[in-house]
Amino acid sequence: MTPAAVADGPSVLAALRDALGDAVVTDATRLDAARADKSGHRSAAAPLAIVEARSIEDVQSTMRIATSTRTPVVTRGAGTGLAGAAMASAGEIVLSTLAMDRVLEIDEDDLVAVVQPGILNGAFNDLLGERGLWFAPDPASRAISTIGGNIATGAGGLLCAKYGVTRDAVLGLTVVLADGRAIRTGHRSIKGVTGLDLTALMVGSEGLLGVVVEAVVRVKRRVEGTIATVACFFPDATSAARASSAITAAGVQPAVMELMDATSLLAVDALLGTSMGESDTAHLVVQTDGPAAAEEAASVLATVESLGGRAELTTDVAEGERLLAVRRAMHPAMERLGTTLIEDVSVPRSALPAMFAAIADVEQRFGVTIPTVAHAGDGNLHPNFVFEGDTVPDHIWAAADALFTAALALGGTLTGEHGIGVLKRRWLADELGDDQVDLQRGIKAVFDPLGILNPGKVFDPLVVR
Amino acid sequence: MTPAAVADGPSVLAALRDALGDAVVTDATRLDAARADKSGHRSAAAPLAIVEARSIEDVQSTMRIATSTRTPVVTRGAGTGLAGAAMASAGEIVLSTLAMDRVLEIDEDDLVAVVQPGILNGAFNDLLGERGLWFAPDPASRAISTIGGNIATGAGGLLCAKYGVTRDAVLGLTVVLADGRAIRTGHRSIKGVTGLDLTALMVGSEGLLGVVVEAVVRVKRRVEGTIATVACFFPDATSAARASSAITAAGVQPAVMELMDATSLLAVDALLGTSMGESDTAHLVVQTDGPAAAEEAASVLATVESLGGRAELTTDVAEGERLLAVRRAMHPAMERLGTTLIEDVSVPRSALPAMFAAIADVEQRFGVTIPTVAHAGDGNLHPNFVFEGDTVPDHIWAAADALFTAALALGGTLTGEHGIGVLKRRWLADELGDDQVDLQRGIKAVFDPLGILNPGKVFDPLVVR
Repeated sequence: MTPAAVADGPSVLAALRDALGDAVVTDATRLDAARADKSGHRSAAAPLAIVEARSIEDVQSTMRIATSTRTPVVTRGAGTGLAGAAMASAGEIVLSTLAMDRVLEIDEDDLVAVVQPGILNGAFNDLLGERGLWFAPDPASRAISTIGGNIATGAGGLLCAKYGVTRDAVLGLTVVLADGRAIRTGHRSIKGVTGLDLTALMVGSEGLLGVVVEAVVRVKRRVEGTIATVACFFPDATSAARASSAITAAGVQPAVMELMDATSLLAVDALLGTSMGESDTAHLVVQTDGPAAAEEAASVLATVESLGGRAELTTDVAEGERLLAVRRAMHPAMERLGTTLIEDVSVPRSALPAMFAAIADVEQRFGVTIPTVAHAGDGNLHPNFVFEGDTVPDHIWAAADALFTAALALGGTLTGEHGIGVLKRRWLADELGDDQVDLQRGIKAVFDPLGILNPGKVFDPLVVR
Repeated sequence: MTPAAVADGPSVLAALRDALGDAVVTDATRLDAARADKSGHRSAAAPLAIVEARSIEDVQSTMRIATSTRTPVVTRGAGTGLAGAAMASAGEIVLSTLAMDRVLEIDEDDLVAVVQPGILNGAFNDLLGERGLWFAPDPASRAISTIGGNIATGAGGLLCAKYGVTRDAVLGLTVVLADGRAIRTGHRSIKGVTGLDLTALMVGSEGLLGVVVEAVVRVKRRVEGTIATVACFFPDATSAARASSAITAAGVQPAVMELMDATSLLAVDALLGTSMGESDTAHLVVQTDGPAAAEEAASVLATVESLGGRAELTTDVAEGERLLAVRRAMHPAMERLGTTLIEDVSVPRSALPAMFAAIADVEQRFGVTIPTVAHAGDGNLHPNFVFEGDTVPDHIWAAADALFTAALALGGTLTGEHGIGVLKRRWLADELGDDQVDLQRGIKAVFDPLGILNPGKVFDPLVVR
């Protein structure tokens, strides 16, 4: 797929500088940083240049030059991806949309906002909060990840089961194509079915199809009523998973339901200086909101206690946030332990106990410890493999392979919210099948006939089809 | 786009009969019925045959024969479409999935169901209702339209603003491709971002990309609490539209908010023998549900009265259903008046009063009456043009064109929930732009290189690109 460049590095750089001036960055430290994302992995070599786009026109100029010189482009936001999709390597242009960070419009009547891709999810929510509004997609990285990145990966988060995934929140996009042309997809009305749904196709497309330069998104009014948080402790993760299934089976729809196993809890304790974990303690934190919050929290409490868990209920908002901060600290806690390979499997939520049992089995078979957290309300697990150095050791790949195979057997999926990037492309065809991968490659070729948009990501370049 | 057939009709028929036996129907009355859908329009001639598929294998056999003989295939459910997408013409095979009407699984814990495409939306909801569940996509045609058709058109309905559109409810699909191969897209977990989102791409694709033979859909638990219905009367549609905007701006999220203008109301009166309408009466019916239903209904009442409307509130469920039955009778009421061209524009909901003013302007300029109903909660309007005969008169096209142009100028879209079919393809590029239409045609060609899947629909065959 990777095209041979028809122009050498210096002449591409000269063309970029000529068109974009000081938006072109070649500082060695900055280029080196663009080799990595938050997955802890790094590309083989530093990219050619970073273009810090300030406008749609900058993006268009960059893509025109990339097309005319056959130069690969890696679109990048805050670089918080966890699958390597925004890692750039030798000869590539990094097209950064981080400086395009304005909120262009907030329409309180239509509950629609128009944003540039570079705004941080958290910063956007702060602005919305001043008007009693919020944006539902809530990845654990929200303080440091951009809306553009959230859209590119189809980011999930803590609230998806109740409040939807990123795709549900995106109404329309402005996209710059590989050759620099721009299109507008979708609509700003709630409904719209004119032609094929390219908006939905763009969400989660990981930089393969075009560059998102503007997004029309749905926002929501702040949920009124109590926010109740129930913190629960169980002897092991499988029991906690069983409780989470029982909670939803009882008819409760939690806003948040997060599960942490004992190893994760201890790692967070080590980071935060807290002391919640013990070697035999798994943690489940459940948050209910809206008019029925108190009633639902009471039901959660009853379910947990009937299953032998310990539980505490608070309706204090700050205390509830503190309990969730534990979960949000998981990724930094893992980073301290070494390089991580974060799995992101998702299974039907009734299969969550079986998936935890499968993880315990993989731990035993491969002699590894796999600290695991889960968005239990929607069956999305993050088993973490920790190792030293830049390269995933073979036995870790083997364990990850066994784990993914188990998820698939339970009716699950390879990635719930992180995407494929480079780290999971080896399993793509296992889940989709060769026929579907062929179709997806065909769609990619329609958008990007020269193969310059994020080559080598999602589809394995070694598999020629 | 329409390919030249390499086999003549009799030999295609022979091949179909050989493979599919009495699933192949050539009864003249049945073939004639497949020329039309509920748009009131008809194709130029009867199709070659109808295949009543009973299984995925039947669909695959049909597509293999279609591919090997280059015969066009029109996939069809209950034939209730309103844009002509399922109308079949000379030389075409109608692939009916109506007999594939089983519910394969209902998982009450995971809130997921697996269905065949031919089950009626209403019948599916009846089955779910026995378990305290429901399927949110709720087109006005739900008693007579299939889930497969709902998916193919991206059908909307009355509840979208609060409970989502069809795309949001579809997790995964089994799709038979043009050459008879089958793929499985998506997942049955709530989250999943493995590769490009072909599930979302299939929703609303109007038979262009493949044949949906199975769907994994999200279902919901019955909403507990009161259902409150507020029936409101205003002197004209624009006032009613203003009230609907004020209701949502006040922070209420109605489950249903339907607007009917005076002409529509009189037409329904004529059909049902009721007497709600007067020449100067527009009707707005608002339904609230869930734990805050009573409170929200009180807010609706206050808003309506402050704007000079008359309003009555009921919390009686049967009475509420009766009030909504008026709205559901709109389409049969229009059918009695003549052939209709039903527009389906959708605008940001704050633009609803402006859109009604634009409709009044078009009525005056073109000397036509345009009975209009609207899903006011999500800004989706159905202006109806009524005329005699099978062919849309030129002055009706001209009025429809003016109306669509007005919707687009208000930030709207050509079709909110009916699709493009044949009746709206002339405006496709006006909304999407030529560059996006090219991309969409490219995607179509990836799925259907021979152009045998519903040729001439959505994309205008006269425009060669």
